[in-house]
Amino acid sequence: MIKPYVVGIDIGGTNTVFGIVDARGHVVASDSIKTKKHVDFDDYIAELHEGLSRLIRAKDAEGQIQGIGIGAPNANYYTGEIQNPPNLPWGPIIPLAEKVSKAFGGMPVAITNDANAAALGEMTYGAARGMKDFIMITLGTGVGSGIVINGQLVYGADGFAGELGHLVMKRNNGRVCGCGRTGCLEAYCSATGVARTAREFLELRSEPSLLRNLDIEDITSKDVYDAAMAGDKLAKEIFQYTGEILGEAMADMVAFSSPQAIILFGGLAKSGDLLLKPLKETFEKSLFPAYKGKVQIILSELKESDAAVLGASALGWEARYRYETPLVEQKEEPKA
Amino acid sequence: MIKPYVVGIDIGGTNTVFGIVDARGHVVASDSIKTKKHVDFDDYIAELHEGLSRLIRAKDAEGQIQGIGIGAPNANYYTGEIQNPPNLPWGPIIPLAEKVSKAFGGMPVAITNDANAAALGEMTYGAARGMKDFIMITLGTGVGSGIVINGQLVYGADGFAGELGHLVMKRNNGRVCGCGRTGCLEAYCSATGVARTAREFLELRSEPSLLRNLDIEDITSKDVYDAAMAGDKLAKEIFQYTGEILGEAMADMVAFSSPQAIILFGGLAKSGDLLLKPLKETFEKSLFPAYKGKVQIILSELKESDAAVLGASALGWEARYRYETPLVEQKEEPKA
Repeated sequence: MIKPYVVGIDIGGTNTVFGIVDARGHVVASDSIKTKKHVDFDDYIAELHEGLSRLIRAKDAEGQIQGIGIGAPNANYYTGEIQNPPNLPWGPIIPLAEKVSKAFGGMPVAITNDANAAALGEMTYGAARGMKDFIMITLGTGVGSGIVINGQLVYGADGFAGELGHLVMKRNNGRVCGCGRTGCLEAYCSATGVARTAREFLELRSEPSLLRNLDIEDITSKDVYDAAMAGDKLAKEIFQYTGEILGEAMADMVAFSSPQAIILFGGLAKSGDLLLKPLKETFEKSLFPAYKGKVQIILSELKESDAAVLGASALGWEARYRYETPLVEQKEEPKA
Repeated sequence: MIKPYVVGIDIGGTNTVFGIVDARGHVVASDSIKTKKHVDFDDYIAELHEGLSRLIRAKDAEGQIQGIGIGAPNANYYTGEIQNPPNLPWGPIIPLAEKVSKAFGGMPVAITNDANAAALGEMTYGAARGMKDFIMITLGTGVGSGIVINGQLVYGADGFAGELGHLVMKRNNGRVCGCGRTGCLEAYCSATGVARTAREFLELRSEPSLLRNLDIEDITSKDVYDAAMAGDKLAKEIFQYTGEILGEAMADMVAFSSPQAIILFGGLAKSGDLLLKPLKETFEKSLFPAYKGKVQIILSELKESDAAVLGASALGWEARYRYETPLVEQKEEPKA
């Protein structure tokens, strides 16, 4: 029996990680290359192809790959392109699916953004197995989201649905966000948001804090976590503040799709009760009455080092685009 | 040839309107009864059955009804029940689908709330024909919503998704909302919200206004509209304020599902540029950059007097529940 595999590729601003994944969600082999080493996109694809082919040969998996799933910033599921990425060198429109499929001889490819990939990974291999309605929130450098409704990832009319990190949480005098607007959830509840809150609290207030021993410009969310775990009152309040804003935002998300669960992923999500206690309290208090007590808040079950590749690979099982075929949904095969 | 019909029933706090609708969206006959005339739910059902049977006989439509769709407050699509309605006399759990189906000899019945019914009506017969991703916002006494993603109405895990009237727009010092929380969209952008804004503006400010000729407690959104159309500056500002809040809320909705369009329905939606100009300006300005210029704001194309029945009737075409059969999704028929 030929064992089926998929390939997952996660394209980040720094590293591109790729791996071979089996049907039970085990990453059987993985490797990485530097994303920005090549100014020319074709050179990048060539190195990716070479690295991945080496893995496939090493695992004797030639002919067993069902498809390739890719998670990348600003990746459009419908067009197969990366569109206007803030952080990649290869131009405003990057024909990712086409180039990867072509490099692998017409292998089926599907792409989406990393948060959507994380949601698919969680649904296929993790905490959301069997769930038809949930929201994935990734708390990293930014705040990403992937929304599943009725068992399907929500792509929206343009392929870019699910920017819940850019719900506006402060409508007056809100922080400037990387998107150019002000007051976005991401400006408060990402790792960088927590660091910004730390700087703000330290400047506006005079009480002592372990954080004052650090260069204020270099403070990270990890520093705030360490200080809070050491009992620092100000650092705990920073998590309280972060959890409250996230809880309020998540209550608004529920008013949209009434999910069974909201799943948290990423470094900040591992802050334990420092974040989760104020988050859950504010969330439950802020919910529209009909939703109270119905929505679980749970943590991702995917190992962080594997999650990006696993998530992307989950898309590989349903990949449809092949080089030389038009980018339209595959027609149903005629019934015999 | 037997012409197929569906029945649409709209259960409001005051009137229950019902009608027979053909496949092209014409209401071929309709009538109504008083919703609260009967304290006993069975008596209500008996009168509804009698009135509807009379219509069906008058149109010689016996045997041609494919299903019954019902729009009702707090109606749960999954269970077929009205659950905890704020404004109906028949108890916390009302087995609506069961009783109606039983009264009509096992006719297929489906129920949902009125805003979801409006969205289905728009998709089946109105401005959203051919759209797979849109959001319907009903601006009436409250603010309701129906969300369509990938051609499917979003019901959520519990059947109650889509309470966008209860997105929180003012997180500090917001108005008390009927739901018991504060700052909800509905407290500002419904007909009653506009009247509240009028009272607030009149009390806090001293400038002259036509609205000062009215008893402040009796001012309605219609009064504000009339004053604004007569050139009253304060009344125009009330619409400006309302449009801005609604525009900001709608920008957040887009960050969720990236719809092709947002469709407005209800009395306030007919305020023309008084509301739409500030709404569209604020909406476009508030959108996350990737969505700018992509989302249409359009008005319902359904005649208001027919819309509730039409919307409910649209659900009738896909009604599955029959009395004496379990409330589960119909199994696919085996392929020959």
